[in-house]
Amino acid sequence: MQDRPLIVINPNSSTQVTQGISAALDPLRGLGVPIRCETLAEGPPGIESQAQADLVIAPLLDLAMSLSGEAGGFVIACFGDPGLHALRDRLAQPVLGIQECAVMTALTMGQRFGVISILRPSIPRHMRAFGAMGVTARCAGDRALNLGVGQLAEPALTLARMIEVGTELRDSDGADVLILGCAGMAGYRADLEQRLGLPVIDPCQAAVSMAVGRMALYWTRKETE
Amino acid sequence: MQDRPLIVINPNSSTQVTQGISAALDPLRGLGVPIRCETLAEGPPGIESQAQADLVIAPLLDLAMSLSGEAGGFVIACFGDPGLHALRDRLAQPVLGIQECAVMTALTMGQRFGVISILRPSIPRHMRAFGAMGVTARCAGDRALNLGVGQLAEPALTLARMIEVGTELRDSDGADVLILGCAGMAGYRADLEQRLGLPVIDPCQAAVSMAVGRMALYWTRKETE
Amino acid sequence: MQDRPLIVINPNSSTQVTQGISAALDPLRGLGVPIRCETLAEGPPGIESQAQADLVIAPLLDLAMSLSGEAGGFVIACFGDPGLHALRDRLAQPVLGIQECAVMTALTMGQRFGVISILRPSIPRHMRAFGAMGVTARCAGDRALNLGVGQLAEPALTLARMIEVGTELRDSDGADVLILGCAGMAGYRADLEQRLGLPVIDPCQAAVSMAVGRMALYWTRKETE
Amino acid sequence: MQDRPLIVINPNSSTQVTQGISAALDPLRGLGVPIRCETLAEGPPGIESQAQADLVIAPLLDLAMSLSGEAGGFVIACFGDPGLHALRDRLAQPVLGIQECAVMTALTMGQRFGVISILRPSIPRHMRAFGAMGVTARCAGDRALNLGVGQLAEPALTLARMIEVGTELRDSDGADVLILGCAGMAGYRADLEQRLGLPVIDPCQAAVSMAVGRMALYWTRKETE
Amino acid sequence: MQDRPLIVINPNSSTQVTQGISAALDPLRGLGVPIRCETLAEGPPGIESQAQADLVIAPLLDLAMSLSGEAGGFVIACFGDPGLHALRDRLAQPVLGIQECAVMTALTMGQRFGVISILRPSIPRHMRAFGAMGVTARCAGDRALNLGVGQLAEPALTLARMIEVGTELRDSDGADVLILGCAGMAGYRADLEQRLGLPVIDPCQAAVSMAVGRMALYWTRKETE
Amino acid sequence: MQDRPLIVINPNSSTQVTQGISAALDPLRGLGVPIRCETLAEGPPGIESQAQADLVIAPLLDLAMSLSGEAGGFVIACFGDPGLHALRDRLAQPVLGIQECAVMTALTMGQRFGVISILRPSIPRHMRAFGAMGVTARCAGDRALNLGVGQLAEPALTLARMIEVGTELRDSDGADVLILGCAGMAGYRADLEQRLGLPVIDPCQAAVSMAVGRMALYWTRKETE
Repeated sequence: MQDRPLIVINPNSSTQVTQGISAALDPLRGLGVPIRCETLAEGPPGIESQAQADLVIAPLLDLAMSLSGEAGGFVIACFGDPGLHALRDRLAQPVLGIQECAVMTALTMGQRFGVISILRPSIPRHMRAFGAMGVTARCAGDRALNLGVGQLAEPALTLARMIEVGTELRDSDGADVLILGCAGMAGYRADLEQRLGLPVIDPCQAAVSMAVGRMALYWTRKETE
Repeated sequence: MQDRPLIVINPNSSTQVTQGISAALDPLRGLGVPIRCETLAEGPPGIESQAQADLVIAPLLDLAMSLSGEAGGFVIACFGDPGLHALRDRLAQPVLGIQECAVMTALTMGQRFGVISILRPSIPRHMRAFGAMGVTARCAGDRALNLGVGQLAEPALTLARMIEVGTELRDSDGADVLILGCAGMAGYRADLEQRLGLPVIDPCQAAVSMAVGRMALYWTRKETE
Repeated sequence: MQDRPLIVINPNSSTQVTQGISAALDPLRGLGVPIRCETLAEGPPGIESQAQADLVIAPLLDLAMSLSGEAGGFVIACFGDPGLHALRDRLAQPVLGIQECAVMTALTMGQRFGVISILRPSIPRHMRAFGAMGVTARCAGDRALNLGVGQLAEPALTLARMIEVGTELRDSDGADVLILGCAGMAGYRADLEQRLGLPVIDPCQAAVSMAVGRMALYWTRKETE
Repeated sequence: MQDRPLIVINPNSSTQVTQGISAALDPLRGLGVPIRCETLAEGPPGIESQAQADLVIAPLLDLAMSLSGEAGGFVIACFGDPGLHALRDRLAQPVLGIQECAVMTALTMGQRFGVISILRPSIPRHMRAFGAMGVTARCAGDRALNLGVGQLAEPALTLARMIEVGTELRDSDGADVLILGCAGMAGYRADLEQRLGLPVIDPCQAAVSMAVGRMALYWTRKETE
Repeated sequence: MQDRPLIVINPNSSTQVTQGISAALDPLRGLGVPIRCETLAEGPPGIESQAQADLVIAPLLDLAMSLSGEAGGFVIACFGDPGLHALRDRLAQPVLGIQECAVMTALTMGQRFGVISILRPSIPRHMRAFGAMGVTARCAGDRALNLGVGQLAEPALTLARMIEVGTELRDSDGADVLILGCAGMAGYRADLEQRLGLPVIDPCQAAVSMAVGRMALYWTRKETE
Repeated sequence: MQDRPLIVINPNSSTQVTQGISAALDPLRGLGVPIRCETLAEGPPGIESQAQADLVIAPLLDLAMSLSGEAGGFVIACFGDPGLHALRDRLAQPVLGIQECAVMTALTMGQRFGVISILRPSIPRHMRAFGAMGVTARCAGDRALNLGVGQLAEPALTLARMIEVGTELRDSDGADVLILGCAGMAGYRADLEQRLGLPVIDPCQAAVSMAVGRMALYWTRKETE
């Protein structure tokens, strides 16, 4: 059963985002578990609101269920983990969300995590999620880049703003580890780490990193049954 | 604008449940705000899982948006508040969820609330919600009736089991106020209160009770703008 | 029994404050429940310290008990809720406090609330109250205007300072809903909302709004007994 | 200034209770600080409700202020700490409450404390206080003896019930340190410790124990000013 | 650099325990990262007290530092994570503790975790650790087998007691995922899962499972520097 | 037995620090309990990292155990409380840590405490400790002086920086009581209190202040056995 892939589903319809996620996972491809990235064609171009997150659940569950026979595990690659618990309840395979895994990973790399979000309205949504996870006391802060689509297309401008926001999280809020609050920012991770002197977590890498070992344990468990 | 009704949407397809909700709201019909109960035809007969709760959001938002021109406010009448934040973000009118309102009401009637759930698998879902609300420390416990559909159809049996579970919440867990963790149990409220000596909250009544005043304030605010 | 009024007691002796409270409640007078505002003649001109809050409890309970035969419910209209639990324990009618209700209302309108207080020494008192309510994790911050009586008498100056403090709560502390931490500031609510783009809660409005529905439910319950 | 006594005020009117408190403090009389116990004549015979606790604040503050010129510090000897913050705000001397000090002491003697209360209705009041202290997560449980005055007059019966309740706190709730939730139970402490194998804290001893050193530090601070 | 092993250090001196740990990790050996288990010869035969946990830190750090040149990462294999933060601060490689990883893994498999401990005195130590992790609100309970060394040597008896304790954690405390609170109980995991119907986490498996992906990411990060 | 001293162990090897601690305790020497300060010769010159804190535990326990026959109680005088729980478990006498006692004392002097640390890397360590104590919600902030050894040798410069940091804790973070996060800063306490208008706690004074009364109670308890 070990040849079944981990399927990472990008719930927005942007294949460019999916390609970015896939590239970020390259370092994890040597671990003996095939990693396959899928785009949810029915998703919106981007997921910025609670409604968008909620509405992708139906097609996301459909896609995941249709792939479940060939999948060794799933990662839902949207910072907001839409459909995570619904899918986890339905499947025997490991199902992980990038937000949950980013937080769990952060908790083993620093004492208080800061989140770099794209837009301010996402922050209350994140806070509800951290509350549901019971880890609010370890969140130093969540601050938004507040950049539009055009600005996000300029890497130098985006990095400069990420450094600015990361510096506030570190110096004003007391964060000692940072989480990129979006599926598509992995390319900035190394630069941010170097500039801020803090570990920076890409949530897709965190989730796949946690999924691979769990799939190996899962295969064993099934074999003994 | 005050003649616009408060629309209470039952997101499951059972008109019997909707009728029960409507009957439970009778005491609140004298407050000068029309109360209208709608059934979500596209919903499942009952909502018992996270997936069911997530999947009603799409048709629920559609129904609510189609009614928004004539509504003074909305109540989502499923203990789980599916779509609550998505709808609240989209509309100017007050949007309330029965779970959130039941908890807020309980916090003003006792120090630690207990929840009477129908089935055990709902409890982790409730706990995630209470965590997102930041009120975990005030939840004394959440215990399930664990009765099947057939058993729930027998009122005497159901009441007996509710008294049993409520007694555990009161005596083992330290609850001093109880919440009925389901939209359709209002008929048992008075008996439970009398037998247990604790206030018992029906979540639909709690939500409508909070919505009415908010609608009155909202009208004013709009008028001054 | 439905013709019994909701009695709102202002525990300070300022009839001007009582009149301001009464005016703030006008939008709620159409809900079919008579609203009557009383001034506690034995109270101090204003309640600024823990000692003042504690010492009004004795005359406040006397006044409330003397009115209890004619009251359908009570609201204690001081941000600090003096005597709330004592009165609630003693009476069968609904008894609500404006601080508790402002917080419960805020929890349904945003994820983290900010409080605008008059004077800095009130803040530890508020924090004790939020701790007792178990909602500390959802308080983004509490900041004081630090204006004297003379300055508070100048509306333009007061509003300017409220906007300044509200902006800090929103931008530095991450509040997405604001609470006016005093019984007499309702007149600034609409302007603040417009200027800050956040919902702003007047605690007296919040409490009366919650009381009205509860009184309706209460009457019913009593009738079935 | 070191000859000014620590004044311990029993806010109920029972001189028998005051004598019991005084006897419990004998081991602390050798520390060079005079300890004087006063009875609040205007208090009720016992303090069992929130209203009783609130209503003693007025005469308690009067008594304390009248004694403040001759006092080196104060302890308020009612498990509920009525008037604690009001008096602390008003005086330069150390002012401690037996509930607060019992909890702080417990936190240095075990990981989760259990409280033995006299009557069940006190428990929500205690929980509000622990919430205000921010220590709810370290409270294993609070259980009541539920004994009437007559039963409390029989030491053997009372001890047997205390052992029963303490055993539940230890074995069902996971407490590893116990607090006597009342000013007058010190006489049972040694027996309970021996029978349960856990440290047991008498709140009056805890408060006076913390006050003595603080008074010594306070004298120094004043002398340098 | 990918051929550097993950070194798992058992900080007690029992090679039998080390062998058990190693066997539990077999399912994870196919992931392309060599896994090497070391015994701390200077450790005690078992670690049951806070003092024992503290005192292994010195030789544990010595051993780890001496191996650091050849290690790709470390896991500290004692439920208590002695020396975790000290070693993490000192090394560039990933350093994980089995307690921390068991908890983080549990938080992605259920809403409230229960811990099966060997002996009761370990529980306060665990609670301090969960508090430091900020996850107390998600711990349903921690209960001890209270079996002596002789009894633990009898598998059938041990399993029976684990089922008994696990049942209490599930039914009385509300746990929906269990953690084995000791490095050497992996052999019981499958049976417990089957009997209790809940996921059961072996902490060594959880830590190695999380370490493997992190090492892969770490290599990449270093290569870009 | 009352002539047995309280032994305060400075776990770093600096006799100058020990002398400073001893001087800070002078106001407490009149309480009838001999206070003796010991230097841990095997300790490092200063304790700045988690590893240093962990590694002093072995010699610290040795020293304390060797002195236990003549000691009435112990205080561990390093802000980090190395070995606290290990020693407490082993001895019948009171064992207190200066960090734990500083926090418990702060909780009775203000609602939210701020910590003035020497160096930034200590802050995550402090946060873990406050989490283990369950008091995170009452910590307003922890800010570092970030001064080197040379700068710390200049009192005027150090005081100026302490005022700066203390002002931030008070005005930006909302602290109303401050803790000196180091064993050797007592000399600045009076000046800081005067300049900031907040109570300032020296942790060694706090711990000895709490130990003295506890020792008196302890003697009594032993005598009754």
